[in-house]
Amino acid sequence: MEQIIQCVPNVSEGRDSKVVEKIVDVVRQTPEVKLLDYSSDADHNRSVITFVGTEKGVEQASFALCQKAAELIDMTKHSGEHPRMGATDVIPFIPIKGITMDECVELALRVGEKIGSELKIPVYMYENAAQVTGRKNLARVRRGQYEGLEKRLQDPAHKPDFGPVEFNAQSGATAVGARPPLVAFNVNLNTDNLDIANAIARNVRHAGGGLKAVKAMGVMLEDRGIVQVSMNMVNFEETPLYRAVELIRAEAKRYGVSLAGTEIIGLVPQAALLGTLEYYLGLEDFKPEQVLENRLHGDE
Amino acid sequence: MEQIIQCVPNVSEGRDSKVVEKIVDVVRQTPEVKLLDYSSDADHNRSVITFVGTEKGVEQASFALCQKAAELIDMTKHSGEHPRMGATDVIPFIPIKGITMDECVELALRVGEKIGSELKIPVYMYENAAQVTGRKNLARVRRGQYEGLEKRLQDPAHKPDFGPVEFNAQSGATAVGARPPLVAFNVNLNTDNLDIANAIARNVRHAGGGLKAVKAMGVMLEDRGIVQVSMNMVNFEETPLYRAVELIRAEAKRYGVSLAGTEIIGLVPQAALLGTLEYYLGLEDFKPEQVLENRLHGDE
Repeated sequence: MEQIIQCVPNVSEGRDSKVVEKIVDVVRQTPEVKLLDYSSDADHNRSVITFVGTEKGVEQASFALCQKAAELIDMTKHSGEHPRMGATDVIPFIPIKGITMDECVELALRVGEKIGSELKIPVYMYENAAQVTGRKNLARVRRGQYEGLEKRLQDPAHKPDFGPVEFNAQSGATAVGARPPLVAFNVNLNTDNLDIANAIARNVRHAGGGLKAVKAMGVMLEDRGIVQVSMNMVNFEETPLYRAVELIRAEAKRYGVSLAGTEIIGLVPQAALLGTLEYYLGLEDFKPEQVLENRLHGDE
Repeated sequence: MEQIIQCVPNVSEGRDSKVVEKIVDVVRQTPEVKLLDYSSDADHNRSVITFVGTEKGVEQASFALCQKAAELIDMTKHSGEHPRMGATDVIPFIPIKGITMDECVELALRVGEKIGSELKIPVYMYENAAQVTGRKNLARVRRGQYEGLEKRLQDPAHKPDFGPVEFNAQSGATAVGARPPLVAFNVNLNTDNLDIANAIARNVRHAGGGLKAVKAMGVMLEDRGIVQVSMNMVNFEETPLYRAVELIRAEAKRYGVSLAGTEIIGLVPQAALLGTLEYYLGLEDFKPEQVLENRLHGDE
């Protein structure tokens, strides 16, 4: 694939695997799309589906998945721990290769419009695709959840970006957005003192005067007897991995604590790794096309 | 491609582009193979062709290329600066993914046997595929070049591994081998003193008591007014890139010289980059499958 968009829809069914399989099948059957992963959480009663594909493939698969979820999931009967407001709760589009963020926003808008007009589901655009001030943050968009939606739709300030103002009891509402890829990245510390991990996390994260695109918290690793600064790197182009590591190293020094290692959880775009390698090697003029494996799948 | 073998044949024609194109076309037309690069040097009168593919594809393409070169190149009329002994001078096979070195050696032996028996060209196996003591080193195998070959073939110690003992005046002889991928890697120093680069190069390379899989020399970068330690990393699994960088940093210290940066020239396997990144980040339990792009092309 010369063009890669990642799409990670979350649907409000995590207990009935037959329903989840039918929804995932929609992705499996769409051309120009590859299913990478899906996982269900019974407590959350929610499933996260990860796939990648071309613009055309991802546009088709995301709408078809939303249509299938609208058919099979009844929000009037849904309960679960995770905040949610619809059968297909969120659909983020993530530019990976050969597509800009602006193009991902356009893609999100087309899918949002189609869900609104054809499935009669209220749609809110969020993150980089937000069209209304205050809708960038998903938590704010989803405030009041499904249960508060009928009332909220009557408020002109909460008019959906697409679809009907009328409450759709069966499907709720869907948030459609575009955002950079997220990297789950942890730095382990040679101490069992959780207060130190928490103090460092506060200083490293954006909210505490730290790095712009970092969310962080302290975590105890009971089995290893050490603590960790657990991070979401929400935009590795703005704030690369190495910058978080080196800042944590500097902050840890005041406690006489050294770094025990780092972990990347789940998937990571190659660009996030190359950017950080370039820093440590002082690499000059390196191009991703120099990676042998990147040359194997071109159109030619 | 789940299986990737790289193959970099060198043919003794670098001036007549029509001939080169016809030879390269053989690779283009072979299934399960992708042409990555080819370049000709008129002074050397030699072309280097780089392609990758499955075992089956690479086996077929390398033989067909050798056959075409035997047809189109007449060694009795060849001159050029680069040492050579045949129309297809060398064929190295390089394991990249989903294949072991031992399997690459087996592949090289099959191709060598076929070139010998079907094309009646004497074949010498070299590097990891060497079958006779003293044939590991290509320079030794090629000693005396094409011009010395007729006489050399009469020496029982130089009996080819495959093919006739009779001199093939049109095609000469071909060296077929298997070796690890090679990374051309340079470390730039903040000094214009070439003696320092040469002294560091001597200490870092294997021959000088340095790192096992490193060849190194000092080079002046005239336009930048600095010097560089220019290296061939001949086995990045044995000697990773970071180890050369950190050793050069340590050696440079005695001269009060710091590192200006590094360069990777040409193609590099992803594994060479990930191995070095793991060192600098202290990355724990990282798997190549976590790289998003690596998940896009599997068979599923």
